[in-house]
Amino acid sequence: MNSKKNRPILTVGSMAFDSVRTPAGRADQVLGGSVNYFSLAASLFSPIKIVAVVGDDFPKDHLNFLSRRDIDVSGIQVAKGKTFHWVGEYDTNLNEAKTLATALNVFEHFDPKLPESHKDCPVVFLANIDPVLQTQVLNQVNGHELVACDSMNFWITGKPSELKETLKRVDLLCINEKEAFLLSDEKSLEKAARKIQTMGPSNIIIKRGEYGSALFTPNGAFLAPAYLIDEVIDPTGAGDSFAGAVVGYLAENGAKRDMMKHDPNGWDQLLRRAVVYGTVMASFTIQDFSIGRLKTLSREELMHRREKFMKMMSVSQA
Amino acid sequence: MNSKKNRPILTVGSMAFDSVRTPAGRADQVLGGSVNYFSLAASLFSPIKIVAVVGDDFPKDHLNFLSRRDIDVSGIQVAKGKTFHWVGEYDTNLNEAKTLATALNVFEHFDPKLPESHKDCPVVFLANIDPVLQTQVLNQVNGHELVACDSMNFWITGKPSELKETLKRVDLLCINEKEAFLLSDEKSLEKAARKIQTMGPSNIIIKRGEYGSALFTPNGAFLAPAYLIDEVIDPTGAGDSFAGAVVGYLAENGAKRDMMKHDPNGWDQLLRRAVVYGTVMASFTIQDFSIGRLKTLSREELMHRREKFMKMMSVSQA
Repeated sequence: MNSKKNRPILTVGSMAFDSVRTPAGRADQVLGGSVNYFSLAASLFSPIKIVAVVGDDFPKDHLNFLSRRDIDVSGIQVAKGKTFHWVGEYDTNLNEAKTLATALNVFEHFDPKLPESHKDCPVVFLANIDPVLQTQVLNQVNGHELVACDSMNFWITGKPSELKETLKRVDLLCINEKEAFLLSDEKSLEKAARKIQTMGPSNIIIKRGEYGSALFTPNGAFLAPAYLIDEVIDPTGAGDSFAGAVVGYLAENGAKRDMMKHDPNGWDQLLRRAVVYGTVMASFTIQDFSIGRLKTLSREELMHRREKFMKMMSVSQA
Repeated sequence: MNSKKNRPILTVGSMAFDSVRTPAGRADQVLGGSVNYFSLAASLFSPIKIVAVVGDDFPKDHLNFLSRRDIDVSGIQVAKGKTFHWVGEYDTNLNEAKTLATALNVFEHFDPKLPESHKDCPVVFLANIDPVLQTQVLNQVNGHELVACDSMNFWITGKPSELKETLKRVDLLCINEKEAFLLSDEKSLEKAARKIQTMGPSNIIIKRGEYGSALFTPNGAFLAPAYLIDEVIDPTGAGDSFAGAVVGYLAENGAKRDMMKHDPNGWDQLLRRAVVYGTVMASFTIQDFSIGRLKTLSREELMHRREKFMKMMSVSQA
């Protein structure tokens, strides 16, 4: 279970400093960003190559730490200036972040250029950034076997046609419940998913925070609860680390879009298992501020909680 | 699967007229009440004996209809005056009813008296009414093998000590998420459930509306999603019919509190399966106003949707 196959994931998104307030406390100028969370989660399964930009204030120690986790940081541009900074808070509804301030900083002029060494990754994850950049990255990859993507209301309403161009080339979309309704203009999960499927992504994971998630493949629907956590410290990064475990598991297990045709049932089951890993990963993420818990999380701990979670979901037929 | 064993369920609660507004429309002065929903759902599994009160305006046709469904209505008192009337509405958050008006009418002086024929029911369901009345009913039953109960915020805050007296004698409590937090003074599902267990009920089902439910037994936790419904017409009665299927299934399958000791694993699995039936039953209830869907629902339809639901929950290990 611990053997990482050499099937690297290329991911593009944000590296950031976050300042966040939650009912459990606050954390200022801590490490965040979608590819940060994604990579730490995914690296328990597969090697990662990041494309991103940071300012010259970004700690080299952290880049070194990522490298030691089999995360290739050579595609992270270090630009003159400050790193992207997000300020947000969560009230008792931990499912929704309220953005108080965003300082794009060096992210404003981010022009994702893939090093040659990054152009042959079979699996691509486009984290939640401008769909124009997502497409630019896809254009630089020499053929890929699986493309997964995240997005948000900001792009759904702000760049709908650009997002739709990206979506045409996406196999798996991970998206929040509200955003799925916004993107599809539907009000029920299944209708929303079926409509989004016509936009390109044959597979959709609709994330519902503390209430779990719903997976729709060409073959069926899978409803997963969330793992029970006594106290949520900070929901930031739950979705990104969820996607990290999902895509990491898929890459590790050789998932390719061809499989949808040749073995639709096997594909469906593979994605269900991936969602289980995503759920368990996110449950760790939210137990600490920033990437605190992810930095120390082992595959063994993950597997142990996965076993407990599987028991919480199981019911016998007769 | 269709053989009702002769293990009748005694249930006490409200028969009512409801006037309800939902995003899908409105219904005025339609049949409602907790034991109405409960009984129609439970009668697909087990014979039922109702203890309740109605006014002289209550349609005899409906009592006759219940009788034909193996529901004993001889314990329903017909009092001079009007039947209990609830006026409520749901906004887009379909998980929460807003009560606009309540006319207790004949329900105000309801004094539940069990006919001799009702005193030997092995299974008892105390629907959501004054805990004093719940205890009065329990006091009249000659020994019982299983007691299930529902309650709500109104009694949790209004009659906390009386409710706690009732709870001491309850084996299974079905309660909404918010009410579980209120009753336990905890903020996480598992902590809430574990605390409520110390109050009496060894088994707790926490209902989360469109997000499913969580079952806690002495042996573990089971997290069930809700069945996917395209359009919710009216959530009224979802919880009562959920409980109806749960308790009906338990009665049909000989559930007794002794089993918790002798076969804790079998007990846990039995309750998990009961929750699945409850979930599927509630999904039908909300597809029409009032008891519209429950009146025509067949065991075959229920089983068919249950199969689909089981597939939506299943994930393979390897």
